Amino acid sequence: MGTFGNKIKLSIFGESHGNGIGAVIDGVPAGYTIDMDKVLLQMARRAPGKDKTATPRAEKDFPNIKSGLLNGITTGAPICCVIDNTNTQSGDYSNLLALPRPGHSDYTAFVKYEGNNDIRGGGHFSGRLTAPIVFAGAIFRQILQQKGINIAGHISSIGKVQDKDFDPVNIDNSLMERLSESSFALIDQSKEDLMRQEVEAARMDLDSIGGTIECAVTGLKAGIGGPLFDGIEGKIAQAMFGIPAVKGIEFGKGFESAKLRGSQNNDAFEYKDGKVVTKTNNCGGILGGISNGMPITFKVAIKPTPSISKEQDTVNLQTKENDKLVVKGRHDPCIVPRAVSVVEAMTAAAIFDLL
Amino acid sequence: MGTFGNKIKLSIFGESHGNGIGAVIDGVPAGYTIDMDKVLLQMARRAPGKDKTATPRAEKDFPNIKSGLLNGITTGAPICCVIDNTNTQSGDYSNLLALPRPGHSDYTAFVKYEGNNDIRGGGHFSGRLTAPIVFAGAIFRQILQQKGINIAGHISSIGKVQDKDFDPVNIDNSLMERLSESSFALIDQSKEDLMRQEVEAARMDLDSIGGTIECAVTGLKAGIGGPLFDGIEGKIAQAMFGIPAVKGIEFGKGFESAKLRGSQNNDAFEYKDGKVVTKTNNCGGILGGISNGMPITFKVAIKPTPSISKEQDTVNLQTKENDKLVVKGRHDPCIVPRAVSVVEAMTAAAIFDLL
Amino acid sequence: MGTFGNKIKLSIFGESHGNGIGAVIDGVPAGYTIDMDKVLLQMARRAPGKDKTATPRAEKDFPNIKSGLLNGITTGAPICCVIDNTNTQSGDYSNLLALPRPGHSDYTAFVKYEGNNDIRGGGHFSGRLTAPIVFAGAIFRQILQQKGINIAGHISSIGKVQDKDFDPVNIDNSLMERLSESSFALIDQSKEDLMRQEVEAARMDLDSIGGTIECAVTGLKAGIGGPLFDGIEGKIAQAMFGIPAVKGIEFGKGFESAKLRGSQNNDAFEYKDGKVVTKTNNCGGILGGISNGMPITFKVAIKPTPSISKEQDTVNLQTKENDKLVVKGRHDPCIVPRAVSVVEAMTAAAIFDLL
Amino acid sequence: MGTFGNKIKLSIFGESHGNGIGAVIDGVPAGYTIDMDKVLLQMARRAPGKDKTATPRAEKDFPNIKSGLLNGITTGAPICCVIDNTNTQSGDYSNLLALPRPGHSDYTAFVKYEGNNDIRGGGHFSGRLTAPIVFAGAIFRQILQQKGINIAGHISSIGKVQDKDFDPVNIDNSLMERLSESSFALIDQSKEDLMRQEVEAARMDLDSIGGTIECAVTGLKAGIGGPLFDGIEGKIAQAMFGIPAVKGIEFGKGFESAKLRGSQNNDAFEYKDGKVVTKTNNCGGILGGISNGMPITFKVAIKPTPSISKEQDTVNLQTKENDKLVVKGRHDPCIVPRAVSVVEAMTAAAIFDLL
Repeated sequence: MGTFGNKIKLSIFGESHGNGIGAVIDGVPAGYTIDMDKVLLQMARRAPGKDKTATPRAEKDFPNIKSGLLNGITTGAPICCVIDNTNTQSGDYSNLLALPRPGHSDYTAFVKYEGNNDIRGGGHFSGRLTAPIVFAGAIFRQILQQKGINIAGHISSIGKVQDKDFDPVNIDNSLMERLSESSFALIDQSKEDLMRQEVEAARMDLDSIGGTIECAVTGLKAGIGGPLFDGIEGKIAQAMFGIPAVKGIEFGKGFESAKLRGSQNNDAFEYKDGKVVTKTNNCGGILGGISNGMPITFKVAIKPTPSISKEQDTVNLQTKENDKLVVKGRHDPCIVPRAVSVVEAMTAAAIFDLL
Repeated sequence: MGTFGNKIKLSIFGESHGNGIGAVIDGVPAGYTIDMDKVLLQMARRAPGKDKTATPRAEKDFPNIKSGLLNGITTGAPICCVIDNTNTQSGDYSNLLALPRPGHSDYTAFVKYEGNNDIRGGGHFSGRLTAPIVFAGAIFRQILQQKGINIAGHISSIGKVQDKDFDPVNIDNSLMERLSESSFALIDQSKEDLMRQEVEAARMDLDSIGGTIECAVTGLKAGIGGPLFDGIEGKIAQAMFGIPAVKGIEFGKGFESAKLRGSQNNDAFEYKDGKVVTKTNNCGGILGGISNGMPITFKVAIKPTPSISKEQDTVNLQTKENDKLVVKGRHDPCIVPRAVSVVEAMTAAAIFDLL
Repeated sequence: MGTFGNKIKLSIFGESHGNGIGAVIDGVPAGYTIDMDKVLLQMARRAPGKDKTATPRAEKDFPNIKSGLLNGITTGAPICCVIDNTNTQSGDYSNLLALPRPGHSDYTAFVKYEGNNDIRGGGHFSGRLTAPIVFAGAIFRQILQQKGINIAGHISSIGKVQDKDFDPVNIDNSLMERLSESSFALIDQSKEDLMRQEVEAARMDLDSIGGTIECAVTGLKAGIGGPLFDGIEGKIAQAMFGIPAVKGIEFGKGFESAKLRGSQNNDAFEYKDGKVVTKTNNCGGILGGISNGMPITFKVAIKPTPSISKEQDTVNLQTKENDKLVVKGRHDPCIVPRAVSVVEAMTAAAIFDLL
Repeated sequence: MGTFGNKIKLSIFGESHGNGIGAVIDGVPAGYTIDMDKVLLQMARRAPGKDKTATPRAEKDFPNIKSGLLNGITTGAPICCVIDNTNTQSGDYSNLLALPRPGHSDYTAFVKYEGNNDIRGGGHFSGRLTAPIVFAGAIFRQILQQKGINIAGHISSIGKVQDKDFDPVNIDNSLMERLSESSFALIDQSKEDLMRQEVEAARMDLDSIGGTIECAVTGLKAGIGGPLFDGIEGKIAQAMFGIPAVKGIEFGKGFESAKLRGSQNNDAFEYKDGKVVTKTNNCGGILGGISNGMPITFKVAIKPTPSISKEQDTVNLQTKENDKLVVKGRHDPCIVPRAVSVVEAMTAAAIFDLL
């Protein structure tokens, strides 16, 4: 199902080159004021065509709200937004029916849907489907913000160039705010040039490059989540793997903690200003699946865009022979900068569903 | 909820020192023969007390089957198994009510349940709850095996000692079988001594050590799973984070792929024996959330056991002052070897739910 | 949630006088051909403005399909349809904010949404929301028909005028076909005049009138459904009570069977043409929540439209005093004829979800 | 699935003549005190063997609580209760494998489970499975009661003998309390003799008799529930059809309202003691799927017990010929009195899930 959540139901629909894409968001309580400029800002962060790291497909992606908002206030009914597909050049993709692109869903979708899926532009598997996700996330995060919960991510790495990590015991609101509005979100902004060079080098090689995104949630009080299948990690992970191209996730120290001793990894408790905090935050703010009141931090791995202009080996599903493929059309050499807002949006959906 | 699955519903209940723990497994079709010896073998792999890597709490953990099996054949009704708690030394844990153990759920559970949760032995958060998970997994995997699907994991690392990875394009059944029956599962068995030394060193230091587990699913045909929130990664991730101590997961190359170019990471297709395969398997057998017919491979990070005998800083929730804690009682210096069967079990649950 | 189903997810969105209403249908397999003329026929059966039994609000209600269909064939992606709201006269409803209409959701919605819901035209509670339900049902029933499963309903009664019941052991396809295309569906067509007189009499009295609808499902093989919360009755009932104005449901003999002896109510089995059938069908084709291969039959009670032009007692929520209300605007004196297609549509959704 | 609920998960397991039956109740918050005597009282109301209306199978049905309660207080972990099967006479049922009992699930279960289901005593379809339902309901209703919500039902009719209905605008707590503790719950207690005669007459004829149960929920504030598939009617209906033998449900006036004019059926609002109430309560306390603050009232139809000692026509599934059957063993001539507590229990589950 393209549906996420237990207390909320987030349904994503659409195909890249069909009539439209969109979201239905069920479970948003009545009476919240939504600032549409903030929604559009988030959608702009994700939108392609801003610079050379992104695909030149520069469309409007304006969210037409069909229901659930009246005079900018949530009515309690499901919120539906539709984004019409206007700028589609389907001719580019005609040979993909026979020649599945390596690293893409062309082959697996062909098997699953027995050739009936809309292959144009990646169809329902297109990264374009993340636009309604960002729309939905922009609604969720505004409501969370009214409860004092902030969400922001940054480009943790592109290729081998790394940004600084969040200081997980002390993330101030001004940093969260700056990142959550940035279109190339970095803690250490001096790394922007190096990262752009990494992307440009890939682009010049007709290639692409992957990266990681770190995301933080601040202001979440202790006691949210639950044991076993009710845990925060499981909920956020499910949300993250709903984003195309995510191939890994780790909370707090994550894979690094697997190399540590318990005495190194455990976060000691202490009272600070009358409140229980931890001195370190290797657990990413989550113990036993439940928030401990410290910032939630996690990283996701984004694989390099599979659409590259280099010649690749593939099969021809019609002739049933091995073949070669050069992917034409418009594609990003690196989706990591744009994906930050998508990661934040799905994090907002996950946190909203937990509350 | 302690409930996993859409097509199946796996409910886990119990507290470490309560009357009993167990599982209700709903959605298992009628007519499958279950070999109880194989179930007990899996439970033995997880059971503590086998050697120095594990806690000396050596109980029987015999699964009493209340329903759903008649003469060893599934009836189609929910399968309930109860494991009675017989060997509990609750006195050990009395001071934990005031002094939450760093790295444990004591504090977060205290906040969530307002002090009403059963703290003895970790209560509902105890690793002991993984025994019914292994029981359930043993049912699922036997049925999957009858469909040609095999699941096996191995200790990928303990501390800094690493096992070899699966060769993801070519995993033979004999390896899968050997691993899935081993109580110290390694591809390169020569690493066992080094790993045991790593654990013993931690134990001698009154400390613990983390590790990673790699798991593979073979025999899953192409076309299983789906886009967005329907993907295999999301389903398996949700299952894995239901296991206490898991802090990260990556599929295929995972975090490594974030450093790669698309041309390095994409898996080229080719025909082999008339079948579409990929030459490499960096994607871990999953494209667009859907299986491509290659082995599914993923790794999880297991944090070091938080229960250590070293003195640690914590807070006293009664006096509301900072305090010190030495955790007494029985605990594993390393749960990674025992956790292999738990990872396999939850993988079986996830795959079963997808089919 | 405005979401129905386990294997499918049917999301209904929209408000009567908002920008649009619609449905997202997730879980429809790829490769089914959908005849759009048949969809429009079903929507026409539900549409208002056909004759004096219905509201004069005569709009097009054309379903714009945004996704999930390509060249008339399902792609496997969620199907989204949007129906724009074009003919809305919101002025009619202005005083309802203060004066809740008896029998309507105005008061309960006011309490639940704290006054933020869109009250215009009934908002999200409007009978207009059944248009996307009929759209969705038209998709489901076409696919079911390709599997040999037919669904049809008829006006079982309006006020005190009754149609004949289905012969539950022998329902032929031509009857099913005739009913499922009729806009005033009756088994005994000679009752149409009497029923229309009943409606007209209510209309002349500035009043409205209720009725019942009987629905049958033929061609469903034995063995579908399950015990306890998995039963067909529960699934269909949940679907039916999702339709505004439904206040009761009974399967087979239903409330009548509560007066019977077991020997009268039990349906004896017999072999007929080598197949197990029952001689009678008092159970409505369902035993233990599972289909027995006979037609599924059930009846629903539709309350009289609460919008009537007579003066009624109500409260004024602003002055907090008792008050009087005359409901203006356009409304049906009897929605039963139009509701037949809605009942069929939700039945199709329920059966589809069970398969 | 044998699982009910969204916010709660109620799993029922067991087979009549297997090792045990029980329930897992997930989602009960921590910190509620449960009076076990009240639980046992409810279970006694359902238990067989009290008098001639019931089966002589007089077993203890003691609920062994495995988890989720510590010193009588909920811990927040899932509550598991197991009831061992001790008094089973399986020999009675041996010929049912070949000769399905009319009105029973024998045939449909045979088809669904391909003969692998446990047929003894009705297996998973046995009315005995309602014992853990009553256990779970007894937990839910105690917590609801602490929130001022009361639930009680009565035998509305047996055969043609009718009890008085609730006065739906005015149900006092003492009546609710009396009914909810009674083992033959009647508003007009003078009807008990007539009803017992009706049952006894059926018993003497080797037959059985059906009836209806009316149930009320008082103290539920306005604004609970929601539109479309979120409504109270749908939730309660789904719960009721989870009870074996229920074949119909109606809310408020239900099927009677289908004969009425809107002016007769609408419930006028008025202020009473500063509170909005309705003068009548034909809607059963529910408008637009949402509670209006008046008592919730509904009736369910219970079919006559299908197990009767009269000879009946059936088929022989082995010889594939028509045959005759006389059902031996112990069975109730009328389950309606015992079913009252089951209806109340599932109502409690439904209301709990809505809150």
